[in-house]
Amino acid sequence: MRKYAEMTREERQTEYAAVKAAYESQRAKGLKLNMARGKPGKEQLKLVMEMGTILQTEEDYIDDGLDSRNYGTVDGMPAARRLFADILGCRPEQCFVGGNASLQLMFDTISKAYVNGLLHSEKPWSKLEKVKWICPVPGYDRHFKVTENFGFEMISVPMTATGPDMDMVEELIRDPAVKGMWNVPKYSNPTGIVYSDETIQRLASMKPAAPDFMLIWDNAYCIHEFACEFQPFGDILSLCEKYGNADMIYEYASTSKITFPGAGVSVMATSEANLAYLNPLINIRIISYDKINQMRHVKFLRDKENTLALMKRHAAILNPKFQAVLNALDREIAPLEIASYNRPVGGYFVSLDAMPGTARRTLQLCREAGVTMTGAGATFPYGKDPQDSNIRIAPSLPPVEELEQAIAVFCNCLKLSALEKLGL
Amino acid sequence: MRKYAEMTREERQTEYAAVKAAYESQRAKGLKLNMARGKPGKEQLKLVMEMGTILQTEEDYIDDGLDSRNYGTVDGMPAARRLFADILGCRPEQCFVGGNASLQLMFDTISKAYVNGLLHSEKPWSKLEKVKWICPVPGYDRHFKVTENFGFEMISVPMTATGPDMDMVEELIRDPAVKGMWNVPKYSNPTGIVYSDETIQRLASMKPAAPDFMLIWDNAYCIHEFACEFQPFGDILSLCEKYGNADMIYEYASTSKITFPGAGVSVMATSEANLAYLNPLINIRIISYDKINQMRHVKFLRDKENTLALMKRHAAILNPKFQAVLNALDREIAPLEIASYNRPVGGYFVSLDAMPGTARRTLQLCREAGVTMTGAGATFPYGKDPQDSNIRIAPSLPPVEELEQAIAVFCNCLKLSALEKLGL
Repeated sequence: MRKYAEMTREERQTEYAAVKAAYESQRAKGLKLNMARGKPGKEQLKLVMEMGTILQTEEDYIDDGLDSRNYGTVDGMPAARRLFADILGCRPEQCFVGGNASLQLMFDTISKAYVNGLLHSEKPWSKLEKVKWICPVPGYDRHFKVTENFGFEMISVPMTATGPDMDMVEELIRDPAVKGMWNVPKYSNPTGIVYSDETIQRLASMKPAAPDFMLIWDNAYCIHEFACEFQPFGDILSLCEKYGNADMIYEYASTSKITFPGAGVSVMATSEANLAYLNPLINIRIISYDKINQMRHVKFLRDKENTLALMKRHAAILNPKFQAVLNALDREIAPLEIASYNRPVGGYFVSLDAMPGTARRTLQLCREAGVTMTGAGATFPYGKDPQDSNIRIAPSLPPVEELEQAIAVFCNCLKLSALEKLGL
Repeated sequence: MRKYAEMTREERQTEYAAVKAAYESQRAKGLKLNMARGKPGKEQLKLVMEMGTILQTEEDYIDDGLDSRNYGTVDGMPAARRLFADILGCRPEQCFVGGNASLQLMFDTISKAYVNGLLHSEKPWSKLEKVKWICPVPGYDRHFKVTENFGFEMISVPMTATGPDMDMVEELIRDPAVKGMWNVPKYSNPTGIVYSDETIQRLASMKPAAPDFMLIWDNAYCIHEFACEFQPFGDILSLCEKYGNADMIYEYASTSKITFPGAGVSVMATSEANLAYLNPLINIRIISYDKINQMRHVKFLRDKENTLALMKRHAAILNPKFQAVLNALDREIAPLEIASYNRPVGGYFVSLDAMPGTARRTLQLCREAGVTMTGAGATFPYGKDPQDSNIRIAPSLPPVEELEQAIAVFCNCLKLSALEKLGL
C-alpha cells in the first residue's frame, strides 16, 4: 500500500474507484451499527445482574442506623461514602454520594455557582459580565454543552501527551473572569491520555486570579483499565489541600461503567468546607438521592479490591473490541498516512485525527452506510473543530463481529474523504 | 373545661400551674419524638418490600425494545409514562418520568426558566429586573425555598376552604412580572384543602400577562386519601388546553408516598410542546434518570387500580394516626378555643392555627420537651408567618403510641403559650 499523498492523480482515481466499490457493497447491506457513545455492551450488563436482587432483608436497607428506604441524609449513605472514598483515595467526609449520573452533580455545582455563587464567590456568576472556562481539546462533548448552557466563553487548550498545555493554562488563570476548567485526568475522553504527575502537580498548585475557580476533575475512568493492570492514581484532594487549594477542587466519579450505565451511583468529592456550603443548597432541590440504590451498590461492590476484580471482567469484554478497532486502523489506515490515532489502555474511546478538513465528510459517508459515530466537531467547544479533523470512536457497544463491520466501513469512509481532499 | 379567654387572671394562673406540672413531668421523660415532616412510618415501608427484588430476569428490564439498564431515553421508559398517565388521567406523551424526587423536577424546570427561558419566554428570567411568584399560604415550605433560592419576590395569597383566593390571583396575574404560582391542588400541604371545581376552572382559564407563566400543579397527594374512598380529580392538562393554556401548566407527582419515600419515581406532566422544548435542555444535565427503578415501579404498581388498592393499605396505617391527633385536639384544645384546625381526609398533614403570636413559643416548648415539629413560620414564604400562628402537624412517622405521647405534649405547649399570651 502506498501513502495517498505520494500517489499520482491517476493512482488516486483508481484507488478511489476500488474503495468506492467496496463502500457501495457495504452500504447495500443496509447496516445499522452504532459507535457513537461510550455505552457498555449487553455482555457487560450481564456481569452485574446479581445486583438487581441483592437487597433481600430489611437489614440490608439499613446502615449506621439510617434507613435508606425513607427520606433524609442528603449527602448519601455512610457506607456509600466510605466505598467511594476507598476507590478514590480520599476521606468519606469529602464524599457527597448522589444519583445515577455524575453529570448532574457537575451541572448542579456549576448551577449553584451561577445562581447562588460558590463558597468563595463575590457574587453569583449570573451577575457577572463574563465567565470564561478552560476546555482541554479534544474533550468530552457533554462537558462543553454544560458550560455552553450557562453562556460561559469556552477557551480551548490543546491536549498534549501529558495532559493539557500547562503553560497556556497558567497564563489563562491570571484572568479573574476564568472561573474553571474541565478535566478528565485519567484516560481522558476521547484521547485516552493520562495526565502526568507534573501536569497534576502544576494544576493542584496553581493560583488562579478568581477566588472561586473550579478545578473540575471528572475521574470518570478512575479504575477503567482494559489493556493493563490497574494503575494507581494519586488523590487530587489531598494534593490540592497541600498547596492551599482545598476548596478549588471538585472531583466526580460514578459507577455508570462499573454496574448499570443508566442506574448507577455517582459521587462528588470536595473539601468539607465546600460540602458544608453546598449541602443546604443541594437540599433545596432534593431531600436526598436514591439511597436504596446506594445500598445496592455497597452490598454488590463491597470495596475497592472487589470492584477492581469486577473491572477485570469488564476489561476482558472491552479489550477485544478496542483491539479490533486498532487492528483495522493499523492494517487499513496507518500505511496510507491519512490519520493518526491513540492506543488507549483504559477509558472508552479511540481518538482519531483524520486529514484536516475531512472529519465531517468521513462521518457523513459513515452515516449514509448505516454507521453512526459521534458527530464531527463534538469533541470541541460549540461543536466546532477548527481543523475538522478529530473523530471519536466508541467501540464498547457493538459485539465484536458488528464492530468489525462498522470499523471496515469507517476505514473506507476515511479513505474516500482523504482521496477527495487530495483531489481526484 | 372553660374557654381560656373567658377565665379570670387567677383562673388562668391556676390552670397554668396545673398544665405546667403536667408538661414538666412529660419533659422529665426525655422523649425524642418527631412530627416534623411528612415522612411515612416503618409499617408503610414494609408494604412495598416486594418491590426490591421484583426484577428477576433480563426481560423484566426491557420495555418496548428499550433496555432500562443502559444509557438513553431521557423522558423515561414508555411503560412508566403510561403508568403515570393512567394515574393522572393525561396522555403518556405528556409525561416526563424522572428520578426519585418530583421536587428536583420542579426545581429544574424553574432553573431552566432562569438560565435558558421557557418555550414562550422573551428572555431568561435571570436577565429580568424582577420575577414575582404567587404563593398560597399556608403552603409547602420546600416550594417556598425553591422560589426564594432564585430570588423571586413571593406574594402570599390566603387559602380559603375552596383553594387560593382567586380574586387576588386574578388581580396579581395582570402584572407581567408575576411568572408563576405554586399549587398543591388536592389535600394541599398543609391545609388538606381540595381545590373546588370553580377554583380549578378559574385557574385553568386565566390569562396571565406573562407569556411564560408557570401554573405549577404539585399533585403530590393525587391518590392519597386516608379517611375516605378515592376521590376522582379532573385532568388539569386537558382543562388548560381547552382554554388555550396548554403550555402554562406543569403538573408533578411521585411515588414517594406510594412506594419508598427516598427511592421512588417522579413525573412531570406538561404539553408536548413544552416537553419538546425542555427535553434537550434536561438532556444537557442528565442522559436519563434511573430507568431500572422506573421498571421496578411499573412491575410492582402495574396500573392505577392496583396502585389504589395499595393506597388503601397505606390509609389503614395512616388513618389511626390522624384520628389520634384529631381526637386529642378535639378533647384537649377545641373546648378552650385557643386554636382552630382542619380535618383532612387525605394528604399528610393537620394544619393548626394557634392563637396569634403563640406558634413560635408553642414549638419552643415542644422542642424543650423532646418533640420536634415543623419550624414555626415554615408554611409561609421566607419562613415568616405574619400572625405567628400556623403550625403544621405531621402524624405519619411515629407509631400510634409515640404519636399519642407527642400530641399530648403538643397540647400542653399550646395551652401554656396561650395562657402566657393572655396574661398571667
